[in-house]
Amino acid sequence: MSATTSTPIHPVLTNRRSPRSFDATATISNEALLAILEAARWAPSANNFQPWRFHVGVRGDEVFTSILGTLVPFNQSWANRASALVLVSVVDQNEDGSPRPISGFDAGLAVSQLTFEAHSRGQVAHQMAGFDAAKAAATFELPTQIAPIVVIAIGTQGPAEQLEGVLLERENAPRQRKDLAEIVLAGLPN
Amino acid sequence: MSATTSTPIHPVLTNRRSPRSFDATATISNEALLAILEAARWAPSANNFQPWRFHVGVRGDEVFTSILGTLVPFNQSWANRASALVLVSVVDQNEDGSPRPISGFDAGLAVSQLTFEAHSRGQVAHQMAGFDAAKAAATFELPTQIAPIVVIAIGTQGPAEQLEGVLLERENAPRQRKDLAEIVLAGLPN
Repeated sequence: MSATTSTPIHPVLTNRRSPRSFDATATISNEALLAILEAARWAPSANNFQPWRFHVGVRGDEVFTSILGTLVPFNQSWANRASALVLVSVVDQNEDGSPRPISGFDAGLAVSQLTFEAHSRGQVAHQMAGFDAAKAAATFELPTQIAPIVVIAIGTQGPAEQLEGVLLERENAPRQRKDLAEIVLAGLPN
Repeated sequence: MSATTSTPIHPVLTNRRSPRSFDATATISNEALLAILEAARWAPSANNFQPWRFHVGVRGDEVFTSILGTLVPFNQSWANRASALVLVSVVDQNEDGSPRPISGFDAGLAVSQLTFEAHSRGQVAHQMAGFDAAKAAATFELPTQIAPIVVIAIGTQGPAEQLEGVLLERENAPRQRKDLAEIVLAGLPN
């Protein structure tokens, strides 16, 4: 595992993190939220199927509170300060009912563009797999072919010092990734 | 379906397409290829598991030829002009052998960052689900917990006019996406 970036990449990608120190007083404009969703919308997908679906809550509204209630307690403890919470679900069946295993991958493409757009606008986005997908499906009465996959907290980053204990430790920990030689199984450029 | 972007988003996302008109004379530098892989490397993933793996071929080398041979004929007909082909696979089991259904989504996050970095450098990237995953797994002797999911053609875009028939039609077709109201199931900002 190495935290160094050997080759320069786009600064938004270099600087992107998944923080937990959201500013509980910050709100997000409708314009920014629309642009962030629009960025997801334009992602590519196999056969242009666009299997991504979103439920969008703004802090204080009913959708936000419902999404927050699906998170594991650890995530609730910091995500309640986000300006918005987005539940991401995937259409994992074709129209004929056959499974569509590529849908999760395609949703990742869309969520990455959403995250990029948020960070390029000075917002931050933190994705969570730690939530109750069955509860989310029930809460929002999703049909069987639409499965919740991730929740994203979006907002303004505040001071790390508002956090305590393990939250503060994680916030200040360096980002770490496997070396390129571990993830490029053949053909790593010199 | 609408092709208009109602809200401005980052220009790299606005302009990104998945072209087929690769310039068969163009090569990609090791520096650019490294940066493109580095961008994928820094994607977030559930529990920082980093389930993405890459085989990287440069036009003319053995890995490129092997990956090209796994594509469906339609994709071979244009992807042979790419400067590089990348086979993306996912580690879809945890270390204890249990399934890891979030891996495909996480791989999408990494591939999106790879694609963004390529386009921000003036390269283009076109993802394909149209390939023989079993043949790719056999060719590269992948262990059972690593499953091929997509192939990416990376290179320099050439003139569309080098294409013919359905390839040319698709190259010149406007990008289309579902309206935001179709993919945002609750909480669409005004």
